[in-house]
Amino acid sequence: MSTQKKIDFCSDVGGSFGKHIIGEDEEVIQYITSANIDCGWHGGDPIIMNKTVQLAKKYHVSVGAHPSLPDLLGFGQRNMECSAFEIYNYVLYQLGAFNAICYVNDIKQSHVKLAANLYHMAIASEDIAKACIDAVVQFDPKLVFVTFAGEKGNAMTEIAKKNGLAVVREFFPDRAYAPNGTLVSRQLEGSLVSDPLEASDRVLRAIEDNKVKTNDGTDIFIDAQTICVHSWQEGAGKMAATIRSELERHGIAFTSMINLV
Amino acid sequence: MSTQKKIDFCSDVGGSFGKHIIGEDEEVIQYITSANIDCGWHGGDPIIMNKTVQLAKKYHVSVGAHPSLPDLLGFGQRNMECSAFEIYNYVLYQLGAFNAICYVNDIKQSHVKLAANLYHMAIASEDIAKACIDAVVQFDPKLVFVTFAGEKGNAMTEIAKKNGLAVVREFFPDRAYAPNGTLVSRQLEGSLVSDPLEASDRVLRAIEDNKVKTNDGTDIFIDAQTICVHSWQEGAGKMAATIRSELERHGIAFTSMINLV
Amino acid sequence: MSTQKKIDFCSDVGGSFGKHIIGEDEEVIQYITSANIDCGWHGGDPIIMNKTVQLAKKYHVSVGAHPSLPDLLGFGQRNMECSAFEIYNYVLYQLGAFNAICYVNDIKQSHVKLAANLYHMAIASEDIAKACIDAVVQFDPKLVFVTFAGEKGNAMTEIAKKNGLAVVREFFPDRAYAPNGTLVSRQLEGSLVSDPLEASDRVLRAIEDNKVKTNDGTDIFIDAQTICVHSWQEGAGKMAATIRSELERHGIAFTSMINLV
Amino acid sequence: MSTQKKIDFCSDVGGSFGKHIIGEDEEVIQYITSANIDCGWHGGDPIIMNKTVQLAKKYHVSVGAHPSLPDLLGFGQRNMECSAFEIYNYVLYQLGAFNAICYVNDIKQSHVKLAANLYHMAIASEDIAKACIDAVVQFDPKLVFVTFAGEKGNAMTEIAKKNGLAVVREFFPDRAYAPNGTLVSRQLEGSLVSDPLEASDRVLRAIEDNKVKTNDGTDIFIDAQTICVHSWQEGAGKMAATIRSELERHGIAFTSMINLV
Repeated sequence: MSTQKKIDFCSDVGGSFGKHIIGEDEEVIQYITSANIDCGWHGGDPIIMNKTVQLAKKYHVSVGAHPSLPDLLGFGQRNMECSAFEIYNYVLYQLGAFNAICYVNDIKQSHVKLAANLYHMAIASEDIAKACIDAVVQFDPKLVFVTFAGEKGNAMTEIAKKNGLAVVREFFPDRAYAPNGTLVSRQLEGSLVSDPLEASDRVLRAIEDNKVKTNDGTDIFIDAQTICVHSWQEGAGKMAATIRSELERHGIAFTSMINLV
Repeated sequence: MSTQKKIDFCSDVGGSFGKHIIGEDEEVIQYITSANIDCGWHGGDPIIMNKTVQLAKKYHVSVGAHPSLPDLLGFGQRNMECSAFEIYNYVLYQLGAFNAICYVNDIKQSHVKLAANLYHMAIASEDIAKACIDAVVQFDPKLVFVTFAGEKGNAMTEIAKKNGLAVVREFFPDRAYAPNGTLVSRQLEGSLVSDPLEASDRVLRAIEDNKVKTNDGTDIFIDAQTICVHSWQEGAGKMAATIRSELERHGIAFTSMINLV
Repeated sequence: MSTQKKIDFCSDVGGSFGKHIIGEDEEVIQYITSANIDCGWHGGDPIIMNKTVQLAKKYHVSVGAHPSLPDLLGFGQRNMECSAFEIYNYVLYQLGAFNAICYVNDIKQSHVKLAANLYHMAIASEDIAKACIDAVVQFDPKLVFVTFAGEKGNAMTEIAKKNGLAVVREFFPDRAYAPNGTLVSRQLEGSLVSDPLEASDRVLRAIEDNKVKTNDGTDIFIDAQTICVHSWQEGAGKMAATIRSELERHGIAFTSMINLV
Repeated sequence: MSTQKKIDFCSDVGGSFGKHIIGEDEEVIQYITSANIDCGWHGGDPIIMNKTVQLAKKYHVSVGAHPSLPDLLGFGQRNMECSAFEIYNYVLYQLGAFNAICYVNDIKQSHVKLAANLYHMAIASEDIAKACIDAVVQFDPKLVFVTFAGEKGNAMTEIAKKNGLAVVREFFPDRAYAPNGTLVSRQLEGSLVSDPLEASDRVLRAIEDNKVKTNDGTDIFIDAQTICVHSWQEGAGKMAATIRSELERHGIAFTSMINLV
C-alpha cells in the first residue's frame, strides 16, 4: 500500500500597511495550509495583522509570524548590516506582537518564517541565523521554523535543529533558482516564474524528484516540505489556485506544516 | 498600632530610540518601585526595551508596558484622532512586543500605563479608554492598570474596574494641575514643577491630605496610590532621589503597585 | 458671443510607498490638468515622486506638492494636534523636497494643495491655515494655492489672498457634502459618490449653478475653479474618464489652474 | 614671506529628532566654520533643521546638507543594499528639503556631505558615489562636495571632479584609522580618539606632514582641507574647543570650505 505524499502550502500574506492595501490575501488564503503574516516592520500593521489572523482562522489555515528588517520603504528586500544582537531583539519584538494578536483571536501561532532579506541574510550568515533562532527558541521552542530547501539552506537548518526547533524546508515555485542554489535576485531579469502551470510543474518535480532546474539549465537538489507563493505578487490568486489543483490532480495531499514535523 | 502609609513610585523610562539616548534611566530606576517602559512607538526600540527591562530587574523594580500613539516625531505628545479599533490594535501590538521581552528575561509584566497623549485621550474619551482596556483585559486580565488620580480619572478608572482590572491611581509631582483637574499642557508656561523639594511637598500633601494646589491656587481632590516622575525630563535623577528620601523621612513606605491592589 | 467655461481638473496622485503600489495614476493622469503629488509623509517616496512627476510631464499635466501630516500609517487622514510652528516646518520641508524633484526633471512646480486631514485642519483653523500659507509664501509666492470651495473654505482663501497667493477653489465630485459645507467624513456611511455619471452631474451643477446637494437634500453654494478625483480610490480611472467626457460633452473646457488665476 | 595654512573645520550637527535631543550643537558650532546638517532620515527633522540652520547663521557658519540612508533606528550607521537609483532619489529629496529651509532663512547652502554609512558606501562603491554626485550636480553644481581624505577617498573624489563639483577632503580627528585607510568601524574596540589633545595632534600632523598613524602603528597619507568632529559624540564641545585653540596656537587659520575651492 502506497503512502500519499503530503506537503504544506504557505504564503507570505498581510503585507498591506494602513490604507496601502496590497496582495490577493483573501483569494490566496483559500488554497494554502499555512500563512506567514507580516509583523509591521516591512509590511503589515496591527489592524492588518488582526484581520489577516482572522482571515486565516476563517479558512482553517495555520498562522506564523513573518518578522523582518526595519525597512518598510524597501519592503524588507534590502540587506541591512545589522548586528546579531539587533536582529535578535527585532525578531523577538515582532514575535511577541504577533503572538498577542493570535492570542486574543484564540488561535495558536504555529510557526515562524523570516521575511524577505532577513531570510536571505540568515541563509548567508550563521550569526544572523543563530540570532533569529535564539529569539524563537527563547520565546517558544514549540514553534516550527521554516528554512530554505536545498544545500544553501543546510546551515540555517542545522542551527535550528541543534537548538531544538522542528523545521520544514521551503521551495519557491514562483522564483528562479541560480546554479549555486540561491534564488535569483528580484533586481535581476528572469527572477520570477509567472506561469502557474510552469510553477506547478516545478513543484511536482521538486516533490517527486527532489530537483529544480536553475537558470543555467542545470538541476540542483531540493528537499521541500512546504512551498510558498507570495500573495502580494501579481497573479498570486491564480498561481495559488493552479498549484493547488494541479498538485491534487497528481495525488499530492496538503496539510499544515505542524503535521509534518 | 498605626499602619504605615505605602505607595508605589513609578517612572516613564526607556524613551531612547536607537542612538538617540535620552533620560536618566539608570539613576531614576534606583529610586522607584515600578517602571513604565516605552514600547517603540513614541520612544524605545527592541534593544532599548530589552536593556531597560534588564535594568529594572537588576534593581528589583516591577515592569509594565507604556504603549502609545504612532508618533515618534512628537514623542506621543499630540492627540491623534484615531478610531477605537485602531487604538485597540495598537495597544495590543505593543503589549505583546513588550511581553516577549519580559518573558525572555524571566521577569513578569506587572502593569500597563498608557503613554503621553494616549493617556490623556483615554481620560477624555470613554471609547478610547474602553479600547485600551479591552486590549489589556483580553491580553492579560491580571495586569494592574494605571489610571489618573482625581475626579478627571474617574471614568477611566470605572471602565477598568468594570472590566475586571485592578487599578492604581497616579499623581504627577512634577506637573502643574489645572483647576479642572487635568494636567497643564506642556505647551503652556508653568506646566512643570522642577524644584524637587516642592514636588516632594506636593506628594506628601496628596498622600496625607488628598489635595493638590492647582495653578489658580485652589485645591482639588487627589487619591493616588502611585506617583510618577518622567525619566527623560531634565533633572529627573535628582527629582526622584529627593522625592524618595523626603517621603521616607516623613514615614511613607514604598512598594510595587502589585502589592497595593 | 458667449465665453466657454473653463475649469481645472486635478487629482491626488503618487500615493504609493515603496513596493506598496496603490492608485490608478497612469490612467487618471491622462484626463486631468493638474496633479497633486504626495511628498512622502502620508504617501509617496522619493522614487514614486520622481516617477509621478515624469508621468505628469509626459501627459503635459501641471504639478504641485501635496504636503501632509507625518502619518503614513493613517494616510494622513487623521487630525493631529500639531502646533502651527510644527506644521509650518513640515510643509516647508515637503515643498523643498518636491521642488528638487521637479527641478531635475525640468518641470516647474505650479501649485500646492494640502493633503487629507492637513487640508481639513487648515479649513477649520486659521492658525494652521496661516502656518501652511506662510511656508508657501516664503518658499515661492508664485505658487497657486488650492483652497476649499464653498463657504467653509472662505477663511483659508482669505488668508491665502491676503498673503499674496493666487487661489483656485476646489470641488470634490466623488465625496458627499454635509449641510454645514464640509465633506462627510470617510469614517461615515455614504461619504463617497461612486457612480461616475452622478459625480459628473454634480460637477456640472457646481460649475453652472454654483450648487451642490448635501446629504440632507438641501443645496449649498459652491464656487469651484478646480475639481478633484482621488487616484487611489477604487474606480478612479473610470471616474476621471467619465467626468472629463461628460463635461466636454456639455461644453466645459479644461485647462491647468495656472491659467485660471 | 610664508603663507598661513588654512583649513575648514566642520561638524555633523542637527542630529536630534523631535523630543529626542542629542548633541552639543550650540557649543560645537561656535568653533567650526561649516555645519553638516542632518536632513531627517537618520537624524534631524524639519524643526531641528530650521533651528540648526538658524544657529549656524547666528555664528556665521556655512551650512550644507548631510543626507543619509532611510534608517533613523540605526542613525544611518548600517550599510543598506540600496540601488543607485534609490540612493539618487533619496539624496535629491533631502537636498531639496534642506535647501527650502536654508532659503526661508536667507542663508545659502554651501556644500553637501554624505552622512554616516552612506558616506562609507560611496567610498566603497563607484556606483553609489556616482548616484549621490548626480543628485548634487543636477540639483546645484556650485555645491562643494566633501570627500574622504587619503587614498581610499580618491575614487569618490575623482567622480565628483569629473562631474564638475569642487571638492574638499576630510579628516576625522576623533576616529581611529585602519592601515587600509578606512575608519575603524564604530562596532569595534578603539574606534574613537576621545582625548582632545591627542586629536589635536593628529590634525596638526595630518595638516603639516600629510600623515596619520593607523591602529597598527603605521602611517598613511592624508590630504585634508577640512576636519570633522561629530557633535553628537560625548565630549564634542570640549573636543571642538581644544582642536580649534590648539591649531590656532600652531598658526593654522580657519575658514569656510567655500573659500578653499
